[in-house]
Amino acid sequence: MGRIVVLALGGNALTHQGQAGTHDQLAANAEGMARSISSLMLAGWEVVLVHGNGPQVGNLALQQEEGSDVVPEQPLFSLGAMTQGQLGSLFALALRKVLGSRAPEIVPLVTHSEVDPGDPAFGNPTKPIGPFLSAEEAQAFAAERGWAVKEDAGRGWRRVVPSPEPVRILEAASIRTLLDAGVVVIAAGGGGIPVVPTSAGHRGVDAVIDKDYAAERLATSLGAEALVLVTSVEAVLLDYGTPQQRAMLEISVDDAESHLAEGQFPEGSMGPKVRAGIRFLRNGGDVSVITTPALVYASLEGTVSELEGRPGTRIVRVRPVTDPSGERRSFV
Amino acid sequence: MGRIVVLALGGNALTHQGQAGTHDQLAANAEGMARSISSLMLAGWEVVLVHGNGPQVGNLALQQEEGSDVVPEQPLFSLGAMTQGQLGSLFALALRKVLGSRAPEIVPLVTHSEVDPGDPAFGNPTKPIGPFLSAEEAQAFAAERGWAVKEDAGRGWRRVVPSPEPVRILEAASIRTLLDAGVVVIAAGGGGIPVVPTSAGHRGVDAVIDKDYAAERLATSLGAEALVLVTSVEAVLLDYGTPQQRAMLEISVDDAESHLAEGQFPEGSMGPKVRAGIRFLRNGGDVSVITTPALVYASLEGTVSELEGRPGTRIVRVRPVTDPSGERRSFV
Repeated sequence: MGRIVVLALGGNALTHQGQAGTHDQLAANAEGMARSISSLMLAGWEVVLVHGNGPQVGNLALQQEEGSDVVPEQPLFSLGAMTQGQLGSLFALALRKVLGSRAPEIVPLVTHSEVDPGDPAFGNPTKPIGPFLSAEEAQAFAAERGWAVKEDAGRGWRRVVPSPEPVRILEAASIRTLLDAGVVVIAAGGGGIPVVPTSAGHRGVDAVIDKDYAAERLATSLGAEALVLVTSVEAVLLDYGTPQQRAMLEISVDDAESHLAEGQFPEGSMGPKVRAGIRFLRNGGDVSVITTPALVYASLEGTVSELEGRPGTRIVRVRPVTDPSGERRSFV
Repeated sequence: MGRIVVLALGGNALTHQGQAGTHDQLAANAEGMARSISSLMLAGWEVVLVHGNGPQVGNLALQQEEGSDVVPEQPLFSLGAMTQGQLGSLFALALRKVLGSRAPEIVPLVTHSEVDPGDPAFGNPTKPIGPFLSAEEAQAFAAERGWAVKEDAGRGWRRVVPSPEPVRILEAASIRTLLDAGVVVIAAGGGGIPVVPTSAGHRGVDAVIDKDYAAERLATSLGAEALVLVTSVEAVLLDYGTPQQRAMLEISVDDAESHLAEGQFPEGSMGPKVRAGIRFLRNGGDVSVITTPALVYASLEGTVSELEGRPGTRIVRVRPVTDPSGERRSFV
């Protein structure tokens, strides 16, 4: 049995800035990411892919609204489920294309994230979704549909939904079964379809789950060795925007936690990634990596990529020893 | 290891005649079907659920068109993938609710159906999808998007797409792995996402795959014992609309094939079900059942349901012996 790595990819990486989000654009972007991560599979890692869905679920919500005169709109959690089918298939086909005859079985799984109905996020919806609205539209939707709405920095009003913490991934045992059989699994897309436990099973709730937190939950329950949070910057920066600004390369979980507590990482971007990385180690994981697709392999294996230069951010259990030559850092 | 049954449920059963297709309607209908088939799981059958998606994918296509000024439309095979997420989650939650604490792991899998690029259906698109169009709209879409369009019996024009035969389900080995681990699998929704093999992996194609044929392919490759094709009539009728009209109850595969060859079963409705049932037996299956949700259990187990009366249509290898009392039929 190989080592298990859970990789979280952003939905923004599938629809680049300025792109409308046509299928051809999505497929080309997925193929690029598939190329970057295929080396992990060829190196014997058992891979679980978690993808975001922000732009794609936003597009579906817009289409639902535009078509609401002719077709009933589906709830937000249902749109999240749709993006798991859409993007799961997209990544599976991209990986098959890139790996060719070396491709293992690659299976996208429709996955639910259980959240606590008592999560304080339900009393304080913060996550903006969907299009900008006029004040009148916003008040009308709030009255008609019970939406929470907020004004967004002068750009107009938007619907806001709760972003509760994922507690567990319902399908984790099946994902483990497939990994043990050598299958690459795509799961917890968009952070998983949010559900709350009821007296009879689970019921969908309109919320948005952070995919990095969901990836941590999944990695922990799988007993994974590594959690990789893929982003658009090569490494997390410390003292951002000051003369002391520097890349955070290999760092102990204790030091990472201190920096997080100091407020070094903004909540809208790096904060949740660093927090997810720390949680994974606190829950038994070996290493969390935060970097770009191109640097995933070198960062995870702890080697310096000859092509790409230095690797990204690695959070590890123990503070690493610095190579006295200063030229190359040693990895634990 | 229990016996494996693949159950194919129609998409029309999820959106009843006259319903608009709200989420609450879909969920209530899914729950009703889950109740009917839960007895199979409790009786030890390993269950694979294949669902249709006709009304739901049609609704998505309408929303895509209505929103096309603001969001790019996704191709038909992508909409099929979306319905696998949407309806897979819906059935999984419905089954969990009905089974409660007795629920096994229930996992919806995003599934691709390979079709032959040389399938004659690609040269003769016949399956109408989406809304009715005026002649002018139809010609414009045909010119702009390369759609094939046809006039539909005076009701207007519609887009028609190919309906090729499924060759194999790409994820069959993973489905088998999950079944062997005691998991209920939801797969090949909407007949599977249609893909053709290329020199590098597979590529999606705009087509609609018959879900009953896809269910047969899956049942055969899983080595299933039974294929159940769920429909809205209790049993297949012979000599329909004549004084000799009668229900086809238990019948040998040879006799079923003769009736099919005689043209007893219309291609738009019962024909594909009977053909799928026959194929399954010719490929090694034990029994194919065609009946309503309420009669699935009694029909599959070959017992007369005390509550529901006689069971539905069973296609078996050998012509059954009739009980001389005439009151009750014996099953092989």
